[in-house]
Amino acid sequence: MATRTLTGITPSGTLHVGNYFGAMRPAIAAQDLGECYYFIADYHSLTSVFDPEVRRAHTLGIALDWLACGLDPAKSVFWRQSDVPEVCELTWLLGTLTPMGLLERAHSYKDKTAKGIAPNFGLFAYPVLMAADILLYDTTVVPVGKDQKQHLEMTRDIAIKFNQTYGETFVVPEPSIAEEVAVIPGLDGQKMSKSYNNTLPIFGEEKVLKKKIMSIVMDSRTREEPKPDAADLPATKLLKFFAPNDVYDDVLAQLQAGGFGYGDLKKALFEHYWEFYREARERRADLAGNLDHVNAVLRDGADRARTVATDVMDRARRACGLV
Amino acid sequence: MATRTLTGITPSGTLHVGNYFGAMRPAIAAQDLGECYYFIADYHSLTSVFDPEVRRAHTLGIALDWLACGLDPAKSVFWRQSDVPEVCELTWLLGTLTPMGLLERAHSYKDKTAKGIAPNFGLFAYPVLMAADILLYDTTVVPVGKDQKQHLEMTRDIAIKFNQTYGETFVVPEPSIAEEVAVIPGLDGQKMSKSYNNTLPIFGEEKVLKKKIMSIVMDSRTREEPKPDAADLPATKLLKFFAPNDVYDDVLAQLQAGGFGYGDLKKALFEHYWEFYREARERRADLAGNLDHVNAVLRDGADRARTVATDVMDRARRACGLV
Repeated sequence: MATRTLTGITPSGTLHVGNYFGAMRPAIAAQDLGECYYFIADYHSLTSVFDPEVRRAHTLGIALDWLACGLDPAKSVFWRQSDVPEVCELTWLLGTLTPMGLLERAHSYKDKTAKGIAPNFGLFAYPVLMAADILLYDTTVVPVGKDQKQHLEMTRDIAIKFNQTYGETFVVPEPSIAEEVAVIPGLDGQKMSKSYNNTLPIFGEEKVLKKKIMSIVMDSRTREEPKPDAADLPATKLLKFFAPNDVYDDVLAQLQAGGFGYGDLKKALFEHYWEFYREARERRADLAGNLDHVNAVLRDGADRARTVATDVMDRARRACGLV
Repeated sequence: MATRTLTGITPSGTLHVGNYFGAMRPAIAAQDLGECYYFIADYHSLTSVFDPEVRRAHTLGIALDWLACGLDPAKSVFWRQSDVPEVCELTWLLGTLTPMGLLERAHSYKDKTAKGIAPNFGLFAYPVLMAADILLYDTTVVPVGKDQKQHLEMTRDIAIKFNQTYGETFVVPEPSIAEEVAVIPGLDGQKMSKSYNNTLPIFGEEKVLKKKIMSIVMDSRTREEPKPDAADLPATKLLKFFAPNDVYDDVLAQLQAGGFGYGDLKKALFEHYWEFYREARERRADLAGNLDHVNAVLRDGADRARTVATDVMDRARRACGLV
């Protein structure tokens, strides 16, 4: 069977550089390696976003961001989860074979409620919807980070249980554990993460983003001082992602030698960051000016996804005697 | 707003006389009092029946039984739950606003797991699907027995929570607590119930049913002995449901006077029981010989139900920002 990779994208606001190098770039590169299915997980967002306008804005924003960054609907299937509501029907079917204990052991639910998030049925049921997301499309491979490994194990358990109870119905997917990507440093040197409030967005106003970079807090060494530890500075680490190797090496050498200040470094960082996303930024502006096209892309993706989903649901319904 | 009553029917095997007088007859009489929606709850059956053939047989059997007993598709909307899968989508939407505590307090889940039924996500989620069943059709009234009262309260809580979060979307239904129906005695004098294994089916082979009635265990009094307590005998109590009043009074008087034996009583019971369901039995045989018609009736019901469901789902999706 050909490889079919599925990736769900939570519409949770502005994407940052950490998301880009950690998740988007590998996912987009994967388009050339096999069949790729990407969906915007708006049903999942219902467990954390309770403002309809915010959900709409985030969903559209995610579509624009991914299309701008290279998701190619000619190569891949890209759709909005709720445009294929069959996934909810499958969630019910799978849930009736899911032991409570399996869900009670889910780390993500335990972590979220431990953080004080109200224990909510949607959060608790999340791994069942995730299993349906995966099984509905005969997915063979799911790229997972460490934190999602347990959820994929659950999906496999549920699929195997269904197949044992009602006969072979679902493809049991394999995880693809992502190679450890370099940790993307945030503006404060910690790992870049929304929860640390240290992110650099992929897209935004030039002035705002420039100011964000220029205000990175550094140490008090003067322009003239040599900085032998230059490679460990967050701004330098970030530069490495955006600048060509020779530029990076040159900046590093100048910092180490002395006579190259933090203002120079940050200016170089901004310039190369800004250049790095130029093409994507232009594409995003074009798309934002042509939302009919974006909606048509998503609808077309939904039609293609639904063709597979209808077939799989038909198998599942027959297997368990609903038809 | 006009009254719209909704009743879900679990396809759980052969219906008995207790089901008939307790649930079917009042539901069928209600058809003349307002708009009635009846559905065969095959999605719910997934939590307890794990054999597809059994599910198919039960679903068809329930359709035949109810149509035979007077459910009139010209008056009411009658469909198979899984023919309107929108109910699963609504289940997800409602679940994301349902606190875990609400479900953890559900008696039915606690009772079932206390009885040793494996704690299963489907059982746990049952009240959310039930809420979706009700809210999807703008139901105004739900007839509930005592054991279902809590579930309707949950439906109301969930509907109110959704309306508060996303704006007025759902009709908040009212319970209609059934008047206490006379307890239908089983063949052993206890309440008739599948779990006591003392039931008299509505439909079945004449020989088998006759034998069932003729083998009701009585006391050792002879034919000649007067039986002053005749009104308390299970067979007499059952007779009262099936025989015209004058016949019942006459049998009772003869039993009390003496010279009327248990064989006579059981014979009379069988005859009147058999006569009581004659018309329904004939209708059932006709329907069983014309399954295309039965399937067409269910499909037509599903179309009518879906018209309402589509409208309600559209409101719900807009309200929470999925469209």
